[in-house]
Amino acid sequence: MQLIYSSLEILTNLDRESILKSIELAGRTCYKSEDKITSDSATYFAKMICKKGHGAVLEFGPDITVRFIIDRGVSHELVRHRLCSFAQESTRYCNYAKQGHVIFIIPPWVNLGPGEYTKLPTKLSESENIWFNSLLAAEKAYLELLQHNWLPQAARSVLPNSLKTEIVVKANIREWHHILELRCSKQAHPQMRGVMLPILNILKINLPEIFGDIEYD
Amino acid sequence: MQLIYSSLEILTNLDRESILKSIELAGRTCYKSEDKITSDSATYFAKMICKKGHGAVLEFGPDITVRFIIDRGVSHELVRHRLCSFAQESTRYCNYAKQGHVIFIIPPWVNLGPGEYTKLPTKLSESENIWFNSLLAAEKAYLELLQHNWLPQAARSVLPNSLKTEIVVKANIREWHHILELRCSKQAHPQMRGVMLPILNILKINLPEIFGDIEYD
Amino acid sequence: MQLIYSSLEILTNLDRESILKSIELAGRTCYKSEDKITSDSATYFAKMICKKGHGAVLEFGPDITVRFIIDRGVSHELVRHRLCSFAQESTRYCNYAKQGHVIFIIPPWVNLGPGEYTKLPTKLSESENIWFNSLLAAEKAYLELLQHNWLPQAARSVLPNSLKTEIVVKANIREWHHILELRCSKQAHPQMRGVMLPILNILKINLPEIFGDIEYD
Amino acid sequence: MQLIYSSLEILTNLDRESILKSIELAGRTCYKSEDKITSDSATYFAKMICKKGHGAVLEFGPDITVRFIIDRGVSHELVRHRLCSFAQESTRYCNYAKQGHVIFIIPPWVNLGPGEYTKLPTKLSESENIWFNSLLAAEKAYLELLQHNWLPQAARSVLPNSLKTEIVVKANIREWHHILELRCSKQAHPQMRGVMLPILNILKINLPEIFGDIEYD
Repeated sequence: MQLIYSSLEILTNLDRESILKSIELAGRTCYKSEDKITSDSATYFAKMICKKGHGAVLEFGPDITVRFIIDRGVSHELVRHRLCSFAQESTRYCNYAKQGHVIFIIPPWVNLGPGEYTKLPTKLSESENIWFNSLLAAEKAYLELLQHNWLPQAARSVLPNSLKTEIVVKANIREWHHILELRCSKQAHPQMRGVMLPILNILKINLPEIFGDIEYD
Repeated sequence: MQLIYSSLEILTNLDRESILKSIELAGRTCYKSEDKITSDSATYFAKMICKKGHGAVLEFGPDITVRFIIDRGVSHELVRHRLCSFAQESTRYCNYAKQGHVIFIIPPWVNLGPGEYTKLPTKLSESENIWFNSLLAAEKAYLELLQHNWLPQAARSVLPNSLKTEIVVKANIREWHHILELRCSKQAHPQMRGVMLPILNILKINLPEIFGDIEYD
Repeated sequence: MQLIYSSLEILTNLDRESILKSIELAGRTCYKSEDKITSDSATYFAKMICKKGHGAVLEFGPDITVRFIIDRGVSHELVRHRLCSFAQESTRYCNYAKQGHVIFIIPPWVNLGPGEYTKLPTKLSESENIWFNSLLAAEKAYLELLQHNWLPQAARSVLPNSLKTEIVVKANIREWHHILELRCSKQAHPQMRGVMLPILNILKINLPEIFGDIEYD
Repeated sequence: MQLIYSSLEILTNLDRESILKSIELAGRTCYKSEDKITSDSATYFAKMICKKGHGAVLEFGPDITVRFIIDRGVSHELVRHRLCSFAQESTRYCNYAKQGHVIFIIPPWVNLGPGEYTKLPTKLSESENIWFNSLLAAEKAYLELLQHNWLPQAARSVLPNSLKTEIVVKANIREWHHILELRCSKQAHPQMRGVMLPILNILKINLPEIFGDIEYD
């Protein structure tokens, strides 16, 4: 089996100036105040919109699309955000026998590096052993079921939550603000936080007018 | 471990007359034709609305709420219907050690009845053995991880797609029509079809004006 | 022309006990704590959900449907709540010549009672006269355009925002909470507030666990 | 008063290649078939997706934003598309006295060119006269009410559906396909069709794989 870390990639070009200008241009339509647009008015306008809670205007920045590589446990939580668009690796149509192994995600509390594994490394703790062996056994069962002519959509039954999945998520800036507020808090699942905090940090740097108010420990 | 079949329960009282009357009352607002309401006009009105494709009016029947007991593989597909409301058993907050065992769903292609199982029944085929033993091993790993003080939200990593989950789904009649069209077709996952076809059959009987056009093999 | 006041009617039976029980039943699915349901646990559960901000669970009470009779200015704001279902009197398909007159809504700042009017009452202020005569002229133009064979969907061009419209709005309890928070605040349009405050007052009485936190002057 | 024609401007850069590539990249995640991407595979992929009705994948093209200048009658229909983002000129906050006149939209059935008008042109038909004079009177009433210290949000009561409004609409490609199918059909309001057909024509040229199937008379 192959073990990898969670990861993410922001697919959208975060051009701060053009994002703020899109928001300003749409927002000023409401007040017909386009004549107040200057070369540096967009920053002020975005701050004012956020302060007033006029969130609908934030929807006019370009949507931000993120590719996540996470486990199926986390992805099941992620797809509950109903205002996003999702495209996810299908366990019905992907046959992992073709790549000869199954890929799982290493959670942050397991002290193991990424790599191909066919047997138990010696350095693991007892509980890590249990987790590791369970995945190895699940992979074996999955591959054997395929050999017994179970379709991937049937054989997936034995694949655990640690299974790696890829999911592309597209949402507008207002919705990302909402998602990041929830999913960067301490109440969030640690693996969810693990992929959301890097996004928040990038957005706080690129769009401080909009994401600067979200705090986390 | 405990093995059970998928099941479902429609929690909403399907009172055909009051459903059609709600739809008619809202729909006739559009045309201000409330004076055409008679004791039996609602059936005709609903048929006309469906024929014209004026689906927005169907949203005014009372929402239908269904409790599903399914596996986590199917529930991951189900929650992709973004117009529904969902309340789902949480693998973060439920600790299955409390009930002493884990519950899994028997897929329709496994020839085994529901019950408590601690060892392999003799009558299974080779591939069914693989599936069965894989779940037994996953349950064991999960319970051991909890004993090693992993939280349920961490120990869930080893739980497979066959894990039983309960999920309450609420949607309006227009959305159920859309869901049932997709999920009762032959392209749907057999376990999804297994819980959706009974709903369709009940709705075809109770609301033939609205669901009568959905066909399946 | 006919002048009437704005009004509203809640079409849903607000049975507090069954609403709270629906919420509790769905919500406890998340924690599998159905065994904690007692005859009076629902109130406590709903309060806890609101305090925790677990709004998704509130979606499981039955949707509340309200029929509004308001002016077209207000209805244009109302339909911006994108999570609602709407059925609205159509200015394309309704021909007000059939009823012989056009109906307008009296705003709260005009000191005039409802009734049929064919000429200016003597008691109005100067600005009220302007408003009154403008509506009378708009009605005349509309009816004449229909006589010149303009279709209602063309003749509507001259009908003003004061035009009476009927609109049925259905939303879940979580969404009503959001709408009422926005539309009962002092920032809301006075005619919008005029129809929303009565709803809030009724819901505060019937469902204090859920709507008790919304305050207004 | 000022009379103008309806108009629209597509604010999004319709770069066909990058749109199709975004769709392909997200869509192939579902099947993990990224290895099949070639320099010209995106066209084929988009066609296949449309043929299969796998509309969720179309949501991954960049959203298309359009600025409309239309009348308030049409905008009231437009904002009923609940999956869009809207930013609309506010009749509560814009004070048309500042620009010294009110702007109205010339419907296609009125034979009059754009311009500033203070009195009735001689060339109009009888019904066009009625329409023209009605707008002139509405403008006068509106400006007088403001002079009597009515706020814009109160004085708007007398402004008719012909009032010009600006509205910025953002939606994903899947939703635009749905909107254009409905709003370019012969059942649509002629003024709605008037602004939607140009969009459809542009999208049919730029993205024939996706919009080529929509037909109109």
